[in-house]
Amino acid sequence: MTTPPRVLVFGTGSVGTVYAWILSRAVGEGDLYTVCRSNYAVASTAGFTINSTIFGDGLKFKPQVVRTVDEAVSLSGGKPFDYVVVTAKAIQTTPSMPEQLRPAISPHTTIAVIQNGIAVEKPYQALYPDNPLLSCVVYLPATQIAPAVVTHREIALLHIGTYPSNASPEHKARAESFSRLLNAGGGRTQVHEDVQTERWSKLAVNASWNPVCALSRSRDAQFLASSPPEYALNLIKSLMTEIASVAQAWGYDNINAKTVEFQIDRAKARELPGVEPSMLADAKVGARMEVEAIVGNAVRLAEEKGVRTPLLRGIYALIKALDATFQRDSEKKVSAQ
Amino acid sequence: MTTPPRVLVFGTGSVGTVYAWILSRAVGEGDLYTVCRSNYAVASTAGFTINSTIFGDGLKFKPQVVRTVDEAVSLSGGKPFDYVVVTAKAIQTTPSMPEQLRPAISPHTTIAVIQNGIAVEKPYQALYPDNPLLSCVVYLPATQIAPAVVTHREIALLHIGTYPSNASPEHKARAESFSRLLNAGGGRTQVHEDVQTERWSKLAVNASWNPVCALSRSRDAQFLASSPPEYALNLIKSLMTEIASVAQAWGYDNINAKTVEFQIDRAKARELPGVEPSMLADAKVGARMEVEAIVGNAVRLAEEKGVRTPLLRGIYALIKALDATFQRDSEKKVSAQ
Repeated sequence: MTTPPRVLVFGTGSVGTVYAWILSRAVGEGDLYTVCRSNYAVASTAGFTINSTIFGDGLKFKPQVVRTVDEAVSLSGGKPFDYVVVTAKAIQTTPSMPEQLRPAISPHTTIAVIQNGIAVEKPYQALYPDNPLLSCVVYLPATQIAPAVVTHREIALLHIGTYPSNASPEHKARAESFSRLLNAGGGRTQVHEDVQTERWSKLAVNASWNPVCALSRSRDAQFLASSPPEYALNLIKSLMTEIASVAQAWGYDNINAKTVEFQIDRAKARELPGVEPSMLADAKVGARMEVEAIVGNAVRLAEEKGVRTPLLRGIYALIKALDATFQRDSEKKVSAQ
Repeated sequence: MTTPPRVLVFGTGSVGTVYAWILSRAVGEGDLYTVCRSNYAVASTAGFTINSTIFGDGLKFKPQVVRTVDEAVSLSGGKPFDYVVVTAKAIQTTPSMPEQLRPAISPHTTIAVIQNGIAVEKPYQALYPDNPLLSCVVYLPATQIAPAVVTHREIALLHIGTYPSNASPEHKARAESFSRLLNAGGGRTQVHEDVQTERWSKLAVNASWNPVCALSRSRDAQFLASSPPEYALNLIKSLMTEIASVAQAWGYDNINAKTVEFQIDRAKARELPGVEPSMLADAKVGARMEVEAIVGNAVRLAEEKGVRTPLLRGIYALIKALDATFQRDSEKKVSAQ
């Protein structure tokens, strides 16, 4: 019998909590460490609770809950982690997230990045060029409704691949191991030779709907209902088309007009009030949004290949300014305390 | 000595209050009627107060304050109004604003529309095709800081012209009379053969800055500072350029690249935090915004001439959805009361 791997989950919002639960079923609560921030008090005393339409209601678990990566390393007796799973929101932090992980990373640690957006792996690759780096694209409709309490429905699918896609066989094997680990915990996974196809596919949806819904404070069906199709629907479609053209310039030919048509049909079929994308949820409470990961990086990847994305660039300027407003407001609140 | 004209001011926000004061100086408080809504209680008892950097501090006046047009007609003994001055925010109402004015309009009443946007005169023309109709473009930095209390600074300039610009000499004479009336009250006016040039010129600024600032919750300088010029500044410039191309398609050739350059230079020179456009002020309190007057009509005028305005159309969809959100929220509040 081999010893179970030791896993650190960095960030326990809704996605982090559900994957922590899955991992806790695979490795046990003793070998699973979770870095918590706003939900630390509840998680460290009462543990986490998940109500899921597919895993079950009232699921409770209590891993090793810590406040920082340093604390995780110390609590684990200095032993290295086999997996560091990044499920924190992809926003700029100081120090950067890759930097914060440093105490937990040994030469053998596999880093799995479960974050939205495109090119989000680059900062991890830059800091840990020799570590196995896994890029993961998640489909998991989940919401943290109270500290350490998460509701989840419908699907829990993780697309996994190495970053870069042409990594060594040894790193490729880690993608398979991580997949097996999650499957053992009840997760559903797909390992890809090149997982970036999945990133672009999700990005076409996220980089259009997320900023549009956050800026207009509307759910997706509400946005579509707010003006005739030649305006509302056309804006979404045009944004998706621009993103598809960027994907194609980077060699992902199957992100095309058909992808856009499929996503538009899905949106049109949705009943009022529709779905609340994560950026809208953030915007409603004035929280920082994943602007660079989801929109800014797409704009810059377009520029690198000389692809024209006038609407995406306009949306980027708007959402970046809204995010800056949230930052100003939160700094005001802090200084007023 | 001729009897002074009898004037009705419809809408007494900041612009309505300052023009009511100017008119009260020209015709006297007895012949000036103001339709008030949210500030009725204060205005009808204590009158209005204006603090102006050019007219003076602590200016007080008390016209005939009424709640509705019917009340104005009744209070004035059923006598017709010589001027009906529309200074209400240009938003959709039920019944429409032109319809609400009906009791005050005789065949000789001059209707002066002091509202933002483009093509805002059309509904008045449709309902009162034979009345003298004046289109006015106002430059008046003023804010209602409390009910019936307005601060004002810097400039009070009104551009006046008939609508349409090729109206009869009799109607043209009314533009001159209205101008003389305001000048007698201390106002500054300019009468134009075709005042639409002034409308397009102001629209180039308003249809870009207003929705961008409302969507991003930023003042103009804050927006420009939130991302590099190739994004933030470029969005404003591209929107202005689209509007200029619409103006040109309608024969207003002096709204061109030079206009855009001039306005961009003005914006770049502005220091942080910058100016708060009216739509941002509305958005901050969740009030209805002048979406159709300022953006929607520009988009439709572009379509009529086959001018491509992809960014303006995108911005229109976004700001229309935000406005719909405000409407939903206010209906929720009403039903919760």
